[in-house]
Amino acid sequence: MAAIGKDPSGGYSRVAYTEADRQGREYVMGLMRAAGLAATIDAAGNISGRRAGSDPKLPLLVIGSHVDSVPQGGNYDGVVGSLSAIEVAQILTEGHLTLRHPLEVLIFQNEEGGLQGSRAISGELREEDLDLATRSGKTLREGISSIGGDPAHLAAVRRKPGDVFANLELHIEQGGTLAMEKIDIGVVEGIVGNRRWDVTIEGFANHAGTTPMNQRHDALLAAAKFIEAVNRVVTSVPGRQVGTVGRIQAIPGAYNVIPGKVILGIDLRDLDEARMDMLFGKIQDEAQQIAQASGTKFSFQQVVGDRPALTDPRLRQLIADSAKQLNLTTKLLPSGATQDAGSMARVAPSGMIFIPSIGGISHSPEEFSRPQDIINGANVLLRTVLQLDSQNW
Amino acid sequence: MAAIGKDPSGGYSRVAYTEADRQGREYVMGLMRAAGLAATIDAAGNISGRRAGSDPKLPLLVIGSHVDSVPQGGNYDGVVGSLSAIEVAQILTEGHLTLRHPLEVLIFQNEEGGLQGSRAISGELREEDLDLATRSGKTLREGISSIGGDPAHLAAVRRKPGDVFANLELHIEQGGTLAMEKIDIGVVEGIVGNRRWDVTIEGFANHAGTTPMNQRHDALLAAAKFIEAVNRVVTSVPGRQVGTVGRIQAIPGAYNVIPGKVILGIDLRDLDEARMDMLFGKIQDEAQQIAQASGTKFSFQQVVGDRPALTDPRLRQLIADSAKQLNLTTKLLPSGATQDAGSMARVAPSGMIFIPSIGGISHSPEEFSRPQDIINGANVLLRTVLQLDSQNW
Repeated sequence: MAAIGKDPSGGYSRVAYTEADRQGREYVMGLMRAAGLAATIDAAGNISGRRAGSDPKLPLLVIGSHVDSVPQGGNYDGVVGSLSAIEVAQILTEGHLTLRHPLEVLIFQNEEGGLQGSRAISGELREEDLDLATRSGKTLREGISSIGGDPAHLAAVRRKPGDVFANLELHIEQGGTLAMEKIDIGVVEGIVGNRRWDVTIEGFANHAGTTPMNQRHDALLAAAKFIEAVNRVVTSVPGRQVGTVGRIQAIPGAYNVIPGKVILGIDLRDLDEARMDMLFGKIQDEAQQIAQASGTKFSFQQVVGDRPALTDPRLRQLIADSAKQLNLTTKLLPSGATQDAGSMARVAPSGMIFIPSIGGISHSPEEFSRPQDIINGANVLLRTVLQLDSQNW
Repeated sequence: MAAIGKDPSGGYSRVAYTEADRQGREYVMGLMRAAGLAATIDAAGNISGRRAGSDPKLPLLVIGSHVDSVPQGGNYDGVVGSLSAIEVAQILTEGHLTLRHPLEVLIFQNEEGGLQGSRAISGELREEDLDLATRSGKTLREGISSIGGDPAHLAAVRRKPGDVFANLELHIEQGGTLAMEKIDIGVVEGIVGNRRWDVTIEGFANHAGTTPMNQRHDALLAAAKFIEAVNRVVTSVPGRQVGTVGRIQAIPGAYNVIPGKVILGIDLRDLDEARMDMLFGKIQDEAQQIAQASGTKFSFQQVVGDRPALTDPRLRQLIADSAKQLNLTTKLLPSGATQDAGSMARVAPSGMIFIPSIGGISHSPEEFSRPQDIINGANVLLRTVLQLDSQNW
């Protein structure tokens, strides 16, 4: 994979629906066939590699991840889980092993552009989303068509509870906890909920030279106090919740004009919806106080409202047991990033295995996981698949 | 003038070197000729309307302002002073009055794009500036050519001390002090110095979902603290100094990425250079403290360093006396905005008369000065010109 989508400006750019993405997908389908899997593309554009089970009545056991990337990202996010899943299938094939359950290696399409492939499976991808633009320049509808999907028949890929026995995904942590605490394997407790708001702060634009300091309604100064307040609120209670202001625009945005308007974006994540409600309430209170003190007006528009998705406790236990049998240390932790396993958790028992990301760096050319950690993750994945196959849930 | 450059989106857009600017200039030249002035365009593109004096040995008495505007600005900034200066000439012509000094009504070109016309006169416009882009899309060189100037012969318009007897400009205050304190006429103490810096704050970009709050080097959070600090420093000592952060860019600027880099712009103004030095020193100290606490790095690049320009005390006195004779109240105050009179003050005794701006609003469609205030200003200008003409400095 390291030969595909290497970006001259750094990192890997296998953005969904681009030529590099096409090459990555073709490479993966070749690996699947070599591993004895029947590789096909479903209506949503996901790559499916199936292997029959011994009991034709049993539902699918799904393993996999994604091979698309952000622009100038790394070569581990998604790739580690995708290639490890194919490796698991290959080991079964080489060992002439047949599972009870049919096995599906699923490479979800366009994970980085909003979990599009897995959302089609969970039924969360709406008809109107298909007209949205993607980073490739194509609409989602055009993108899905371009990779061999059939956007007119998305309903065909939708899975209902019971269709999938279990879904299991190996992934790099993308955070720095495992690497810093020198833990081998993360057992993912759930995929955090993610709420995003656009916050508009309206003050009054005026001349930066002629307007005395005490006669200003400076929207950027109010925004500065608010950015601090968001940080203070999010860190005011113990827990793994995170809150970020990553986007900001000051209008008109000239050296010599007091900003009359600021638009900024808040991203808030936690496994606990009640705690997110509480934190957002406090953030709104802070905004109200800043507005009153500065003569500005704050308004909030929610733009994302993804609910948390908990992993299945039985799968957590199987992952932890598998790691223990391999003499690997484990830690229970949330996934702060969105994941295809989060969509899949809405329609099937789902589990996630994390391996350390050095320095917690991800979505960056500096993203790195050690070979031994990747081997550990793949071994835990294999062992968990074998144990899972014997369960009678 | 209100019929020229009216912007469908609000206000007036007579941006230098655009068609609306050309029309405004043509209109002004017509008014000049009707007022008995010989209207020409100098090598810098300034419109000069001359009227001979009775003593050919005496230097020029210059009055005037500008008629270009910011995009979607008002119709008072520059226009009040320009049309009042022509009105003064017209009254002299209608009354068959001849001053001792030759009178020049000077309409400076491209005031809003950096005082280009008056800087040519003061010798501050450098050859290399001519290649800079202007808001019109033209380079400064192309712009000056397009309005009838001759950028190859800018040296011809440069004035040395002694060439101009005095320069006098009527202008709207653009701040809210006169209107709020119900004062008729502002006597300008000087044009404040203006320093601008680009401040780059470098942190570390990382995933907003997976990076725990205590492992972040968030450049935007550091910027927020810094914006507050700039405001705190500037308001920490008494005085009319102002400091503004009007521009900000967070990189990469996505909801789900902790900003790794922020670039923002500071604008600092005061009449007192030593106080500006002191304030900037304190701002740098604050940056250093924030950098240390947040694991970020601040760097400052100065992009503007205009020195304060004091008005001539004799002209201040003449303006105050003229207002008093007209039963108008006065207040001594700085010009927080840059002004053509600031360039002119480097080569000639200069004075400025301010009239109230309602609500202190300027560079906005809501810019407004009452007709009576404009009449007051024009009367003070006329009376000051008459008294000035009799001085033997």
